[in-house]
Amino acid sequence: MSGVVSKARAARRASLQLANVSTKVKNGALLKLALAISNNKRPLLRANAEDIRGAERLVKRGKLSGAFVQRLKLNNDKLRDVAGMVRSVARLPDPIGRTLYAVELDRGLELYKVSCPIGVVGAIFEARPDVLPQISALCLKSGNAVILKGGWEARRSNEAFFELIRDTTERAGIPRGWIQLVEARREVREMLKLDEFIDLLVPRGGKEFVKYIQANTSIPVLGHSEGICHIYVDARADLEQALDICYDAKVQYPAVCNAVETLLVHRAIAKRFLPRLAERYRRARVEIRGCEQTVKLLRGIKRATEMDWRTEYLDLIISIKVVGGVEDAIDHINTYGSKHTDAIITRDRRTALKFLTGVDSSSVMLNASTRFSDGYRYGLGAEVGISTGKIHARGPVGLEGLTTSKFYLLGNGHIVAEYIGPKARSFTHRPLRRKWDDVVRVFNVG
Amino acid sequence: MSGVVSKARAARRASLQLANVSTKVKNGALLKLALAISNNKRPLLRANAEDIRGAERLVKRGKLSGAFVQRLKLNNDKLRDVAGMVRSVARLPDPIGRTLYAVELDRGLELYKVSCPIGVVGAIFEARPDVLPQISALCLKSGNAVILKGGWEARRSNEAFFELIRDTTERAGIPRGWIQLVEARREVREMLKLDEFIDLLVPRGGKEFVKYIQANTSIPVLGHSEGICHIYVDARADLEQALDICYDAKVQYPAVCNAVETLLVHRAIAKRFLPRLAERYRRARVEIRGCEQTVKLLRGIKRATEMDWRTEYLDLIISIKVVGGVEDAIDHINTYGSKHTDAIITRDRRTALKFLTGVDSSSVMLNASTRFSDGYRYGLGAEVGISTGKIHARGPVGLEGLTTSKFYLLGNGHIVAEYIGPKARSFTHRPLRRKWDDVVRVFNVG
Repeated sequence: MSGVVSKARAARRASLQLANVSTKVKNGALLKLALAISNNKRPLLRANAEDIRGAERLVKRGKLSGAFVQRLKLNNDKLRDVAGMVRSVARLPDPIGRTLYAVELDRGLELYKVSCPIGVVGAIFEARPDVLPQISALCLKSGNAVILKGGWEARRSNEAFFELIRDTTERAGIPRGWIQLVEARREVREMLKLDEFIDLLVPRGGKEFVKYIQANTSIPVLGHSEGICHIYVDARADLEQALDICYDAKVQYPAVCNAVETLLVHRAIAKRFLPRLAERYRRARVEIRGCEQTVKLLRGIKRATEMDWRTEYLDLIISIKVVGGVEDAIDHINTYGSKHTDAIITRDRRTALKFLTGVDSSSVMLNASTRFSDGYRYGLGAEVGISTGKIHARGPVGLEGLTTSKFYLLGNGHIVAEYIGPKARSFTHRPLRRKWDDVVRVFNVG
Repeated sequence: MSGVVSKARAARRASLQLANVSTKVKNGALLKLALAISNNKRPLLRANAEDIRGAERLVKRGKLSGAFVQRLKLNNDKLRDVAGMVRSVARLPDPIGRTLYAVELDRGLELYKVSCPIGVVGAIFEARPDVLPQISALCLKSGNAVILKGGWEARRSNEAFFELIRDTTERAGIPRGWIQLVEARREVREMLKLDEFIDLLVPRGGKEFVKYIQANTSIPVLGHSEGICHIYVDARADLEQALDICYDAKVQYPAVCNAVETLLVHRAIAKRFLPRLAERYRRARVEIRGCEQTVKLLRGIKRATEMDWRTEYLDLIISIKVVGGVEDAIDHINTYGSKHTDAIITRDRRTALKFLTGVDSSSVMLNASTRFSDGYRYGLGAEVGISTGKIHARGPVGLEGLTTSKFYLLGNGHIVAEYIGPKARSFTHRPLRRKWDDVVRVFNVG
């Protein structure tokens, strides 16, 4: 039995117990973990420093970028943020044990649908070492066991975080084995095959990385490979708003998935709007690539190719296309977009409604920046990820994305034969006020 | 462009419109369809008679079973049931457009999470011709386009149903192209590759059939390949109840996925219970295969092998194992089960709770027959299928399983830059009473 299989087996075993650990014990473990992170800054930074030294050697040999090393680096402030994040996860409501549906099927036959953990989550992420404590805290809170696979360049930081989390939480009553670390790169390929033990994969990293995982596993994957977000500036847009929003969505943080990549501009306002926008973009050093009409209106810019409409730049580059109206905009987005986040700027409510309902994306916005598309901003408490898939979870996903549900049916000798044939009893299907919690309380008395 | 691709493309196009068709138009189309089925019994039966003749030729050559022909056969009663089913789907509440979450992020910045169709559903099913109108009605009601692939043996019945549904619903205002029929067997393989156009596959058929589909596509699959259901008869069971439930769960309809396949019996009552149960089973011609202890208690039965614990008989066969207690039972089920439906018979509430929370299956029952695990019985209105996966939907799945959600964010020039840095505005995250329906009403006025 390979190392990964035995770790996955242990995680599966632990997950069955973890599913029934109380909110109090889970939150207690999270608060102790936050404290342990604050109290162990020195060993964590020491481990990180080793990773940094290794990475810097690779920078010298031209194998890694300086930006990479920056993302890899931990410091006191970052560790304080990590501890704060763990504490905030402890404060979130428990997503487990919620009664989603409760109905009496017949006298003495009660059905409860209750939220429960998925089981074992496989988290695969690239170098940033603060992802490990974040995804671990989210899994613990939602009662899931987790198998972690971090980037090779952050391996000492990951090990240090992993050991601290494992030791602290297991001492605080979380079932032994609930958290597992996988290190070798070839072990990822093994993980992707373990659909018997792993219920959900949560990849965190670049587009190619996520695409590789999606293409090489039959385990469901929660996440998105890219965000090709659009803003359509309608003929009836408030142009001042449009300028601010187009600027914010591109410039405020261009390296993220909810930044805008393509603007679609109604031809009736293109001449008034584009030169002013181009001026603001120029000052922020945004490169513009335009369609034929845009190129005519803004001299000295590059022509956008078919490829540009399909590209997530994640950089200070934007493509612009002049369109005939909202239908054209919707068509363009549904053809070239990635179903992530798209916005319309308009004062016309009917046009807005056409766009909102016609664009097939996880978030569709009116007169707001695409950058709002985020679990924290949406008030979901914590963000597990943003899903561009339509199954299980769509858009920014909170803790709920790490849960599933289970039906409990409580009878008193009920058999199906009585509900069949000419003298069949009929079902009452009467909603119940009682929640699953109440049942558990009564049953615990015995 | 192959035939399947162009059909899938047409379905995708239609799905974008169908997503916004009103409840009234959808229900109207369903009621017209019910009527059309009643009014077209003769051509439907004629098409079916051709299929039956073809199938009977294959029976003579020993290539099909008589039972197969029975399942293939339509008659006036079955068609009346089909029309009734379509009418009942019209009467169900619309699963689309429900506001799942509504929160003010800040003044004038409102977020709505709203249920919406998944898009394009691929339905692949074996011979029973009444599956086609059922899955079509469920897709229409939930605003999804559907690509249907039925069994070759039922192709004329499927064509007749398909044409009737297409013509009736398109005349009633459902977007052209929303329903597509794929016929050749090689086209299934093509369908499985169309993850660009098909959002969800719903297979209906035997275990091998579903397993084949799951193994050969990256499109999410809703369904289950098998139901290895268990009943654990505890030391503190009411033995009369246990007898009735074990009989019902095996004998009432053995060919279905929620029939019981393995009994686990507490050793303290095995000697009292098993001979009585065996007597009832013998009268119903149920073959018993037992563990060593069961074989000692019930002379003349076969010994169960390791393979028996993993087998879904779908027949009048049952395997029985004597166990030491509830923990053993839970372990056995989590090891050999299929996460479908399992039950405990006991009067001890603490033991019951241990079993209910410890068994990792989509439905777990107390003192009731596993045969209750079904969308209609659970009060879900209609059953799309039973999912043994944990992602997206679990257990009996109603129309909700054919929906996803979409976030709408309505702002008034809001940008993210204002919520960042030392002078950052903060989010209010105040729940909204307003529903998305209300927004649509106001926006439609213009």
